[in-house]
Amino acid sequence: MIKVGIVGGTGYTGVELLRLLAQHPEVSLQVITSRSEAGLAVSELFPNLRGHVDLTFSEPNVEQLAACDLVFFATPHTVAMALVPDLIALGTRIIDLSADFRLKDAVEWEQWYNTPHTCPELLKQAVYGLPELNRNQIKSAQLVAAPGCYPTATQLGFLPLLEADAIDPSLLIADAKSGVSGAGRKAYVGALLAESAENMKAYAVSGHRHLPEIKQGLNIVSKQPISLTFVPHLTPMIRGIHATLYGQLTADIDLQSLFEQRYANEPFVDVLPAGSHPETRSVRGANVCRIAVHQPQGSNTVVVLSVIDNLVKGASGQAIQNMNIMFGFEETLAINTIATLP
Amino acid sequence: MIKVGIVGGTGYTGVELLRLLAQHPEVSLQVITSRSEAGLAVSELFPNLRGHVDLTFSEPNVEQLAACDLVFFATPHTVAMALVPDLIALGTRIIDLSADFRLKDAVEWEQWYNTPHTCPELLKQAVYGLPELNRNQIKSAQLVAAPGCYPTATQLGFLPLLEADAIDPSLLIADAKSGVSGAGRKAYVGALLAESAENMKAYAVSGHRHLPEIKQGLNIVSKQPISLTFVPHLTPMIRGIHATLYGQLTADIDLQSLFEQRYANEPFVDVLPAGSHPETRSVRGANVCRIAVHQPQGSNTVVVLSVIDNLVKGASGQAIQNMNIMFGFEETLAINTIATLP
Amino acid sequence: MIKVGIVGGTGYTGVELLRLLAQHPEVSLQVITSRSEAGLAVSELFPNLRGHVDLTFSEPNVEQLAACDLVFFATPHTVAMALVPDLIALGTRIIDLSADFRLKDAVEWEQWYNTPHTCPELLKQAVYGLPELNRNQIKSAQLVAAPGCYPTATQLGFLPLLEADAIDPSLLIADAKSGVSGAGRKAYVGALLAESAENMKAYAVSGHRHLPEIKQGLNIVSKQPISLTFVPHLTPMIRGIHATLYGQLTADIDLQSLFEQRYANEPFVDVLPAGSHPETRSVRGANVCRIAVHQPQGSNTVVVLSVIDNLVKGASGQAIQNMNIMFGFEETLAINTIATLP
Amino acid sequence: MIKVGIVGGTGYTGVELLRLLAQHPEVSLQVITSRSEAGLAVSELFPNLRGHVDLTFSEPNVEQLAACDLVFFATPHTVAMALVPDLIALGTRIIDLSADFRLKDAVEWEQWYNTPHTCPELLKQAVYGLPELNRNQIKSAQLVAAPGCYPTATQLGFLPLLEADAIDPSLLIADAKSGVSGAGRKAYVGALLAESAENMKAYAVSGHRHLPEIKQGLNIVSKQPISLTFVPHLTPMIRGIHATLYGQLTADIDLQSLFEQRYANEPFVDVLPAGSHPETRSVRGANVCRIAVHQPQGSNTVVVLSVIDNLVKGASGQAIQNMNIMFGFEETLAINTIATLP
Repeated sequence: MIKVGIVGGTGYTGVELLRLLAQHPEVSLQVITSRSEAGLAVSELFPNLRGHVDLTFSEPNVEQLAACDLVFFATPHTVAMALVPDLIALGTRIIDLSADFRLKDAVEWEQWYNTPHTCPELLKQAVYGLPELNRNQIKSAQLVAAPGCYPTATQLGFLPLLEADAIDPSLLIADAKSGVSGAGRKAYVGALLAESAENMKAYAVSGHRHLPEIKQGLNIVSKQPISLTFVPHLTPMIRGIHATLYGQLTADIDLQSLFEQRYANEPFVDVLPAGSHPETRSVRGANVCRIAVHQPQGSNTVVVLSVIDNLVKGASGQAIQNMNIMFGFEETLAINTIATLP
Repeated sequence: MIKVGIVGGTGYTGVELLRLLAQHPEVSLQVITSRSEAGLAVSELFPNLRGHVDLTFSEPNVEQLAACDLVFFATPHTVAMALVPDLIALGTRIIDLSADFRLKDAVEWEQWYNTPHTCPELLKQAVYGLPELNRNQIKSAQLVAAPGCYPTATQLGFLPLLEADAIDPSLLIADAKSGVSGAGRKAYVGALLAESAENMKAYAVSGHRHLPEIKQGLNIVSKQPISLTFVPHLTPMIRGIHATLYGQLTADIDLQSLFEQRYANEPFVDVLPAGSHPETRSVRGANVCRIAVHQPQGSNTVVVLSVIDNLVKGASGQAIQNMNIMFGFEETLAINTIATLP
Repeated sequence: MIKVGIVGGTGYTGVELLRLLAQHPEVSLQVITSRSEAGLAVSELFPNLRGHVDLTFSEPNVEQLAACDLVFFATPHTVAMALVPDLIALGTRIIDLSADFRLKDAVEWEQWYNTPHTCPELLKQAVYGLPELNRNQIKSAQLVAAPGCYPTATQLGFLPLLEADAIDPSLLIADAKSGVSGAGRKAYVGALLAESAENMKAYAVSGHRHLPEIKQGLNIVSKQPISLTFVPHLTPMIRGIHATLYGQLTADIDLQSLFEQRYANEPFVDVLPAGSHPETRSVRGANVCRIAVHQPQGSNTVVVLSVIDNLVKGASGQAIQNMNIMFGFEETLAINTIATLP
Repeated sequence: MIKVGIVGGTGYTGVELLRLLAQHPEVSLQVITSRSEAGLAVSELFPNLRGHVDLTFSEPNVEQLAACDLVFFATPHTVAMALVPDLIALGTRIIDLSADFRLKDAVEWEQWYNTPHTCPELLKQAVYGLPELNRNQIKSAQLVAAPGCYPTATQLGFLPLLEADAIDPSLLIADAKSGVSGAGRKAYVGALLAESAENMKAYAVSGHRHLPEIKQGLNIVSKQPISLTFVPHLTPMIRGIHATLYGQLTADIDLQSLFEQRYANEPFVDVLPAGSHPETRSVRGANVCRIAVHQPQGSNTVVVLSVIDNLVKGASGQAIQNMNIMFGFEETLAINTIATLP
């Protein structure tokens, strides 16, 4: 049983962390902080937690947090980097769900986030929490940067192809569709149901903050520097990411086998049978990425379909998967649940 | 550990039973039958079950079913009543999620379902599986008729008022709104997304099959025969029932207390604080009914708001709650999960 | 051809006014004001208007507005009452889509809107713009208060019954379901798609601002003071109101005839054949109220189903219907369009 | 005023034709046929048409149809090719919304539709009804094959680039997202709201029937044979197509200018300002294609975003645009309406 704290639990990754941690047999939730909601019962903000979580939001307090074995940050960017150095110094382990420690290059981080990084010295130490790539490093990490939602779906789809040097790294395209919960629980006109239901649109075509994160991850496994066109779309649903990935084959290879072998031992990546089309609802609420690979009409183009729940395998579920690895619990403990369908 | 079989698992109550039973520590799933899908892997029909349920649909076989400790029927009406007598004779316990054994009066049943009842002698023996009303009888029942979705939400909302003789039983109104999964997993034009999204409508105002079931249940606790107007509506969402119930008060009573006391020991009925408005999403995927009671503008009219997930507390979750009671497991075992929100 | 101005066109009633007025052959749009968006092209805010409306939002200016034959107010409450007295004095005609002039009783208005009414003397002069009730007064009105959305659907459903003295006015219940565009185009968490899709809930059960408006309208035609329980619900769709109305019959009357005769000459009220269930999508984008009347199981309870598009017959379309009446155009001119289905 | 008949008006393209034609000042609707619904009032099937269309479905009758100046086919494939030869012989003009006359090559047609083509001799005579490509031929055509929905959005997006020889024709990718009305008004499980809401998936990745149609159209303007990867996706909305198109630039060209000039005189193609992201809702119910062109991060990849309403510019609206051209009416007559937003 470990003591766990959460900083900033008023957003969707926060409530999803709470849902999953409340049912985790090795976790004792100690504290959840929120400056704006301090004093409010968690279950008043999130009525699904009534009867399951008795905590009340409190002001963040370093001592209280440092008394935990593990602190999750479920905050907007720049919040974690203000608190993490103190907690690191005090020996607390940390999983940050925000973007603060995902990029290795502080200069690049500052370009995309338009603000200085206040603890660039920790970027090197931080482990990028994609278990399928970094499981061993995660085990002993003190600071884990949980991957973004688009980066999870996209990297898991491209990894086998790039590792096998099977596609041209200069012609990668990721056409990604996300439910609106990816935009977070903040009030803005564009995310109103009246604006985003019965509607589909691309956004941030000129450049999305998840682009450098994806490129960083893919460049690690690619023999040559990759070039990626990443186009995210807003889709009229709450949860789910569907990444449709395109590459140009450079090798004659059994794609189905390649994917099946790459993920044979991965508990949370499910390679579907040849010819399949994964649906986002098949992973709703579950910590799994389902993948299918196609080579339409025998052409040179490989199409990978990769789906996750952006709040689970794309955020809070994957964060807990990291926690399980860090603390030596069974990796699937408490997150091997079944998607709700319909 | 009990052996469990499911007859007819290709609908939404079937997949929901499978989702919940696959995670139940005292259940060993033995067999799931479907004439139409015999030979098909369950996880091919329901991709959320990949990696969790390895069963294949088979032709129904009485011997195989009778070897189970418990058989669930998740079938359209008339299927259960054809098989149940044999299973009863062989000593198998049964929970029927269909309407076959819900009404005590075979004549009334035949009027509403337009077909003869082939085992009316079992109607008396069948226990109506609303634990909040019949917990003791359920314990020893061999045949349980799991309540319908509208009847669950409506009865739980009216019960405290009628038991306390606090409203005029001749002026009951239930205005109920359901997600479209209540119509089942069958192809018909009216339930297409293109027909039922961005749309709201009442249906069956002249008479819905759940009406006699609700009346039967309420008449048991009412001092005088009730008269109920029941208007169901189709709502553009997948899951959820919101019953808005209206009664005319005949007693000066503390409504909030009345409800809180009535359900104080019920694990799956949550009375919200005064002034609350329960949301269907707060119970999505969870086996709970959340209720609020209002007396607007101090008038004579009481308004009860009662929400459930039609597939969980309104069907499969409640069926498993019955199973837990029947077999002496903790009543909340494996169904005390948290709703997914957002 | 009349000159028309719009004050406050950045909300949903504003864009809907623009859509309909841009296609009106007798209207020349002169000016549209918005303090917050002054300088912005209307079609930049509302891309559906590209190529159809060339106006740019400007600061409100009394002289400019007074130069119009007619000014619409599509503003939050309190905005119209600040400008209207000046425009009235200058002889401009006005249709206010907000709540400022709907109630006759300033004291009551102040109770429900929690702010003083700054021109109570105009309340008497203002004509309540429900053409089915006040067509003659509208013709010569200088100031029309366009009805709210719930009040339109509810009053049109109850009017025939109360006018005929056919129901007990002390036992009226209106259970109303609205799409989320009724909440307006303003950013707040509860109206996010991630919060309000796949969800149903009642709200404001203790008292909604449309209640006094409905009561005022119904009391005009009722022989006895009415008592109304009004429960609004938020429904996961963009447009549409479905009012389900309940009354207790006091007379033996042919309900279908009653409704058909009452609305025989009304161009925008469509009484459906007996046994029908109107759908909100059948009025989406159209200025029509479709109504069906039921007496379930021959009981004493009458059930009226009344649907409108909250932004058209419930707001902007009805406002233009008023305009057509005021200026002697054919009442149906430019608003007799067909709902988009699916 | 021309006499118009419709064959097979029970689907979504049928009701949309009726909605638009009923408001067309030069059209007199004579007959609408449906074998399955003969005898039924059109407005009973489509309640939005109550008060606007008085026709009743009738059995198809060649003489009756031939008495029309123009007959629309809004039928599944193979229906038109059975009736069209007779009507052609009798001199009737025809616009076929189905796939029967879209491909020039009968062998290819038969491969994709798995059935013999019964009048291949008409394929050559048929004019492909994309006005932006074939306006002159449409004017005098007797038989027009209205384009499919995906092909309209995709071709309009790629045409400027291929005509200008600005992209590599061997590396075209079209990632297209469609609302479920594209699947038609037929009952099947996959299109139920309970299956397709809150869900996103690709389908037919191995080959979709619109692929040869798109390739045929693009090959006409391309200097070299094109190679296209086309991945359609099902999106949880009723109407709308969003095509995201990818190409590899081979020329240094002002993309914004290229698109603006290409469509400068097109009434129904709207090139958005640089940096824009078109939304499907901005064209809902309207006969317009809105397009934006991007070159993200100055890379070699051009991204075109092209949105239409699949039932309007992707089907019935475009069919009427063809009719206007064929009969010398103003091209925009009765179809220059404004999208409904929100």
